[in-house]
Amino acid sequence: MLSTNNRTQIVTDPLQMQAISSKWRAEGRRIAFVPTMGALHEGHLELLRKAKKIGDKLALSIYVNPKQFGPKEDFARYPRDLSGDLSKVSPIGVDAVFFPSDWQMYPKGHQTFVEVTDATKGLCGASRPAHFRGVTTIVLKLFNIVRPDVAVFGEKDYQQLVTIRTMVRDLNVPVEIIGVETVRENNGLAMSSRNAYLSPSERISAVSINKALMFAKQIASKNEGSSLKIIDSVERMLSGSGLKIDYVKICDPETLKDTPTTAPRSRLLIAAFAGKTRLIDNCELYVLVSTPSDKQSILTPI
Amino acid sequence: MLSTNNRTQIVTDPLQMQAISSKWRAEGRRIAFVPTMGALHEGHLELLRKAKKIGDKLALSIYVNPKQFGPKEDFARYPRDLSGDLSKVSPIGVDAVFFPSDWQMYPKGHQTFVEVTDATKGLCGASRPAHFRGVTTIVLKLFNIVRPDVAVFGEKDYQQLVTIRTMVRDLNVPVEIIGVETVRENNGLAMSSRNAYLSPSERISAVSINKALMFAKQIASKNEGSSLKIIDSVERMLSGSGLKIDYVKICDPETLKDTPTTAPRSRLLIAAFAGKTRLIDNCELYVLVSTPSDKQSILTPI
Repeated sequence: MLSTNNRTQIVTDPLQMQAISSKWRAEGRRIAFVPTMGALHEGHLELLRKAKKIGDKLALSIYVNPKQFGPKEDFARYPRDLSGDLSKVSPIGVDAVFFPSDWQMYPKGHQTFVEVTDATKGLCGASRPAHFRGVTTIVLKLFNIVRPDVAVFGEKDYQQLVTIRTMVRDLNVPVEIIGVETVRENNGLAMSSRNAYLSPSERISAVSINKALMFAKQIASKNEGSSLKIIDSVERMLSGSGLKIDYVKICDPETLKDTPTTAPRSRLLIAAFAGKTRLIDNCELYVLVSTPSDKQSILTPI
Repeated sequence: MLSTNNRTQIVTDPLQMQAISSKWRAEGRRIAFVPTMGALHEGHLELLRKAKKIGDKLALSIYVNPKQFGPKEDFARYPRDLSGDLSKVSPIGVDAVFFPSDWQMYPKGHQTFVEVTDATKGLCGASRPAHFRGVTTIVLKLFNIVRPDVAVFGEKDYQQLVTIRTMVRDLNVPVEIIGVETVRENNGLAMSSRNAYLSPSERISAVSINKALMFAKQIASKNEGSSLKIIDSVERMLSGSGLKIDYVKICDPETLKDTPTTAPRSRLLIAAFAGKTRLIDNCELYVLVSTPSDKQSILTPI
């Protein structure tokens, strides 16, 4: 076991991480956990700050999970920067950083997978067939290794958040899942480790995604009704941005099924390519509803 | 929560079972667990006695899991006898019996499955395509609900035992898995809840399975070598028994891959139908090896 300072243990062995967690549990500590693939940015730090507040002990995992990348995806070039990550999290006070190797997570003969079926079919699941199977498998493994009471995920990967909530519910996993609002750059671009891939001009294009979300929120707040109309407006707005749209969808926030008409808490999700970089973002739509006094008002999200 | 006597709690609610387990863990108890589908027989009672010895608290689950039955299989007529089961386990001293309903285990929208790929392909997996997916899913759910330190399974369902060991290893499930030798009737027939389906003449046929195992053990102990020859002898022996063979296989005891030649701890597995009832049984083969003194001796299983 390595240690950056007196507070943070860096653990590479799953059994040792389980032992540390067992000790914490025996002491009656509430364990909060943030699983990441490293290349940490302000979005991750926000998850860690949130987790720090709700737990007595804070565990962070940094592991670029090969099973959630497709054969033509960016596993090899995904940014890795352990020392940078450690210095970024240092002010927050992480108790343990779990940083395993592939051979420890997937030893020879590994053959067990967790699959959430319905929630992973559409959206990103449509173009990334084995991605969510990889995500749910590694997250369940990490939950069994870290054994947290609560785990914190970003809403930026909204389908991932819903998929993990579904897995936890369906498999009776005794971990509370907390979603945290997307952290954005000043220009509105959602923070993502993959933003590092963007050229200056792609970065300008990428900002259009958040602009499109804001635009859709505005339309939805004024015109209750057809999701298709909103999607069409968003697609038209994005068409001049230099991005290649993968999908624009309006979904039920819990099942991720397409909703033909917007409803309170409907979620708008966008995936688009800036050059070769696939970006995703999403927001909740505010929907116009009638008040008892028959005046129209904006329903704020629950 | 119901209670049969001062000692045994009967729990139907997963959340309540988790709460009981949490209490036990907070008290520092070692929890032993035996998952079953009920219709308990001496084989199950042996698992419970073993579990009783190795844990401070003993939990038994009784749940006929619909997801591990194929559409044409015996889910509807599978024997169910809660009061009989409770009186059978009463002398052993079970602390909690978890007895949930389908709506509690698979509420509307359930869509998450655990799959062990390689170990479930052959043997019973070949003729029961979704069976092991159902088994691993429910066992992981039960592990998350009961949260045992150790779980005890019978070797009679040998592929199930290997599949669960594989799942536990691959998903880092913090549960120790213990296999217990098959309990047999005086005539050698492996105890099984499905034996209740057998007519008197089918029961006589069924005894041939164990006879074939014994016969194979004898051949293997005398003639190290080809698995195919042993399988052939077993199939010829079974051909006059009135049983319809599903498979006779000799496999590696950990991977369940076919082994062309017998090796220490090779496992012989048989599945056969007596009428409409599918029966399974298996044994470890003793293999002839050379001793340092160059005299031949029988290697007993590890």
